[in-house]
Amino acid sequence: MSARAGGRFIVLEGPEGAGKSTVAPRLAERIRAAGLPLVTVREPGGTPVAEAARRALLEDHPASGMAELFLFLAARADLVAAVIRPALAAGQVVLADRYELSTEAYQAVGRGLEPAFVQAANAAATGGLRADLTLILDLPDGVGRQRQLAGGKAGDRLDREAEEFHRRVAAFYRGVRGPGIVHLDGSRPVNEVAEAAWDAVEGVLKQH
Amino acid sequence: MSARAGGRFIVLEGPEGAGKSTVAPRLAERIRAAGLPLVTVREPGGTPVAEAARRALLEDHPASGMAELFLFLAARADLVAAVIRPALAAGQVVLADRYELSTEAYQAVGRGLEPAFVQAANAAATGGLRADLTLILDLPDGVGRQRQLAGGKAGDRLDREAEEFHRRVAAFYRGVRGPGIVHLDGSRPVNEVAEAAWDAVEGVLKQH
Repeated sequence: MSARAGGRFIVLEGPEGAGKSTVAPRLAERIRAAGLPLVTVREPGGTPVAEAARRALLEDHPASGMAELFLFLAARADLVAAVIRPALAAGQVVLADRYELSTEAYQAVGRGLEPAFVQAANAAATGGLRADLTLILDLPDGVGRQRQLAGGKAGDRLDREAEEFHRRVAAFYRGVRGPGIVHLDGSRPVNEVAEAAWDAVEGVLKQH
Repeated sequence: MSARAGGRFIVLEGPEGAGKSTVAPRLAERIRAAGLPLVTVREPGGTPVAEAARRALLEDHPASGMAELFLFLAARADLVAAVIRPALAAGQVVLADRYELSTEAYQAVGRGLEPAFVQAANAAATGGLRADLTLILDLPDGVGRQRQLAGGKAGDRLDREAEEFHRRVAAFYRGVRGPGIVHLDGSRPVNEVAEAAWDAVEGVLKQH
């Protein structure tokens, strides 16, 4: 099932450092400037239960990989039920910073949890609600992390493990294909990326 | 996989009002009196992450049924990884107040979530760790709720819905069969129930 009638469900995805957080507000501005009613959400969070799950994810004592998966899914299930579905039903545009692809990227590809189970659990959490458009901001190997580690400290073992983790996540995102998925080059200037994102959104808004 | 070597994993299950919370400490006392190292846990909770999930479950704004499922599973996954598995590996007896059957009873049978998905998710949360002994405290229809609603207020619509919910949960528990599952009559005096529980535990402790 995807969003129907006037509602459109737009998702921004990509590895850390790909520029989602700078592109998202510019894209939101363009959508609002076009006179469209917009709801923006960011995972995990957006409902009292999802925010509580977010706090659990930020606990000092880190969760096991599987507990982490279920906390993300709890937050998503509540956000879909309480915010995203009602907004789409009311004919609004929903712009989400991360959705189910993030769980495949970080929990399955990154942490090594079983991909088939992660996909089944995603489908259960969303009740099968798919995005109309998923914009993936891609990065060449290492660029996102370079942006993040701007200080340029020497890499110790944990840094190298993190580097490898992010390399796998970025490679997964670059390889994803499917209905409604559009890849954008996150290494381009943010204005150009936001413009390309808006072009893709316009295309989806014109569909009936 | 079940507990190995010295470790034994004992689970108490049953509908609300079946007396788990009064039987559990008496059974724990018997196990300790036999000189066995015991760890007691109660779901959801027992780790910082699981306690955070518990708080999320107790939010003023109730979670959707699916979010609730994932919060319980997050708590269980963390408890298994951080407490139950290490205790069993150290040869200790673990006595748990609720485990995966509670999720089948309340989330699948009670709330109507898909049983096959609930079972797969349970298996993912526990990494396949099964109890050596599951003691189910059974109740005839309505007895548990009668104990709880001791005030005896007149039943409104929500009360009747709750009554029906608990009737289905209690019926599910009475019907469960499987390896390591022992049914006890929760309507008997607590001393007798605790004694029968201890007999079953002794039987499991003698197994090699």
